[in-house]
Amino acid sequence: MTPISAVSRLSGQARGVEPFHVMRLLARAGELEALGRSIVHMEVGEPDFPTPGPILEAGQRALADGRTRYTSAGGLPALRRAIAAYYAERYDTPVGPERILVTPGASGALQLVFLALLDPGDRVLICDPSYPCYRQVLQLMGVEPIAVPVGPQTDYQMTAALAESAWTPSVRAVVVASPSNPTGSSIAPEVLSELHALCRDRGAALIVDEIYQGLTYDVPDRTALSLGSEDLYVINSFSKYFGMTGWRLGWLAGPRDAVAVMERMAQNLFIAANTPAQYAALAAFDPTTIEILEARRLSFQRRRDRLLPALRDLGFGIPVQPSGAFYLYARLPDSLEIDSMTFTGRMLEEAGVALTPGHDFGRHDAGRHVRFAYTREIDDLDDGVGRIRDWLAGG
Amino acid sequence: MTPISAVSRLSGQARGVEPFHVMRLLARAGELEALGRSIVHMEVGEPDFPTPGPILEAGQRALADGRTRYTSAGGLPALRRAIAAYYAERYDTPVGPERILVTPGASGALQLVFLALLDPGDRVLICDPSYPCYRQVLQLMGVEPIAVPVGPQTDYQMTAALAESAWTPSVRAVVVASPSNPTGSSIAPEVLSELHALCRDRGAALIVDEIYQGLTYDVPDRTALSLGSEDLYVINSFSKYFGMTGWRLGWLAGPRDAVAVMERMAQNLFIAANTPAQYAALAAFDPTTIEILEARRLSFQRRRDRLLPALRDLGFGIPVQPSGAFYLYARLPDSLEIDSMTFTGRMLEEAGVALTPGHDFGRHDAGRHVRFAYTREIDDLDDGVGRIRDWLAGG
Repeated sequence: MTPISAVSRLSGQARGVEPFHVMRLLARAGELEALGRSIVHMEVGEPDFPTPGPILEAGQRALADGRTRYTSAGGLPALRRAIAAYYAERYDTPVGPERILVTPGASGALQLVFLALLDPGDRVLICDPSYPCYRQVLQLMGVEPIAVPVGPQTDYQMTAALAESAWTPSVRAVVVASPSNPTGSSIAPEVLSELHALCRDRGAALIVDEIYQGLTYDVPDRTALSLGSEDLYVINSFSKYFGMTGWRLGWLAGPRDAVAVMERMAQNLFIAANTPAQYAALAAFDPTTIEILEARRLSFQRRRDRLLPALRDLGFGIPVQPSGAFYLYARLPDSLEIDSMTFTGRMLEEAGVALTPGHDFGRHDAGRHVRFAYTREIDDLDDGVGRIRDWLAGG
Repeated sequence: MTPISAVSRLSGQARGVEPFHVMRLLARAGELEALGRSIVHMEVGEPDFPTPGPILEAGQRALADGRTRYTSAGGLPALRRAIAAYYAERYDTPVGPERILVTPGASGALQLVFLALLDPGDRVLICDPSYPCYRQVLQLMGVEPIAVPVGPQTDYQMTAALAESAWTPSVRAVVVASPSNPTGSSIAPEVLSELHALCRDRGAALIVDEIYQGLTYDVPDRTALSLGSEDLYVINSFSKYFGMTGWRLGWLAGPRDAVAVMERMAQNLFIAANTPAQYAALAAFDPTTIEILEARRLSFQRRRDRLLPALRDLGFGIPVQPSGAFYLYARLPDSLEIDSMTFTGRMLEEAGVALTPGHDFGRHDAGRHVRFAYTREIDDLDDGVGRIRDWLAGG
């Protein structure tokens, strides 16, 4: 058997997929831990809380009842209705179940929405910095992401003015996230409304990623669907607020005729989402579950309120208070004249702190930024801050 | 709020996705059943057997142990090793775990392989008839499927000669399935070997869908990986033989450097497969599970051996004995001068038998063919045959 270099024959898109830098750091952190080093993990985009008991129990009941067959591509009707009811009750926003599709994670929802709206050669406006999968998945589809630099002036969010100045004739969609990864900022309703109007005028789609919905601290918990228009696409997930990461379950909401088309696409692309997960998620909206989740939300808020001033004290620049998710996107102290990639590498090796370099989220000033995740207990965060302080003092 | 026609603004690919005809029939069957009509289901591509006990129990243990976080994109290392060991032990074919990726169903594996190998504008040879998702997913990616008519002369399989005669310069891959949906035929090792040599010569990839692997009756249970070359792509699934449809878990095997690239792609497209499903699947290869599965395999064989002669007696044309999966692809009796779409519609309404029209699988002689699934007990199959007999006698 001769060795073969298959990579030379891979597609152009496949060869263009960049690895996440944080994956390399995670692997290295694992090696260091295997050698007995202690590492403070401030890089992980996954809540440290386990799946809430009522959801777990519903999953166990589903297995005991043999709920292991395919569901319809759009998801269990009862789950679509439960999500619709959640919008009506929590967000005072009626959304018919026929406008909702249950998907294999928000990843599946993103893929469906992108494929439904975009042809190869189209362009899409995304924020820089933003969740790296937007640009990677778009590029895999032959669609060109246009990264619009966003900063503290606009709370790290897209605005109609920014979108307008970056617009080209082939722009067919705009993606925003609220709360945002990596910046934790939320989009103000009036900003969203202007962006929506602009997209309408230009015949483009507005896609709002709300996978951190529910994890907001100083601002009201909102949904873009409350704009009252059918003509936008919302991505959501059971991963973050509901604590169901490994279950790979999300949903989307969109215009009803587009949702019907996306359901056909889902039949072909996924068949359906995982069945036990869907039954488990039926318990996600129970008052007892929500009570657990709200307590966790307050824990995240306490962590943010501890970590944010501590990092500012060390000279990290966080000019706008992040109001959601579990991330702080921080400018390196001015005294540090190294790139964020070097900084995160050295923090891991020399201080035992794992962080994500700005380069994972785009190019705009990425070398000067790192993302801190507060998905660990306050003691761990304090430990991490202490290690960074010592390192900065020594360096 | 004004109603909006969003469909007009959907992508070209999205508008091109055809619904499965069987879905319409399924919906209609549901309506009829709600009205109290009895329907014999011979359309369903899902085993009627539940997930085997040992797998279910492993899933329950996983939930009890709180195994609900993300796994790495390629899957649990232990599961990749277990799949590798299964190839070594059952198929006498060593395949390193680094050549295996665990995916969200075979659907996820197909998508990864297609995206990794194909750019928009490329062409792919597929069999006509074949699993409808091949052409639909390819079209969603801007890749052109070339449907190669296959019939009883080649056991409804692609051959090197057929591929050669359909080849064009932009062909970059060939897809075959063994055992095949909808025809239940298996590809002979020498035919596969010739096809593999042709693909190599032409710089194209050979993709072998083995999702019905293990469900073979008169021919040895094989894997294309036993060709001994790294240079091919195999798709597999825990859905059919292992009885895990709703868990949405599959895998792929490919050249190791391509697998490394596909793992990066999977990070972006899926994050990972469902975690409890992966832990459950660790029990799929246990001897106690295999014992259950082998008993089921014999049940399927008994069903085939009952249904096949009964349909031939009614005048259905099944010239080659299907040796795998749980399907019979049958030519309508010559005396019936109606299209298979009309036939399946009338069978449902007038005889209470649900079948899948050939049109779901391609164009080649599709109007003269229907697919029978033997995913029901023998009594049900007998009932279905009786209804068809009565209908034919009356019609």
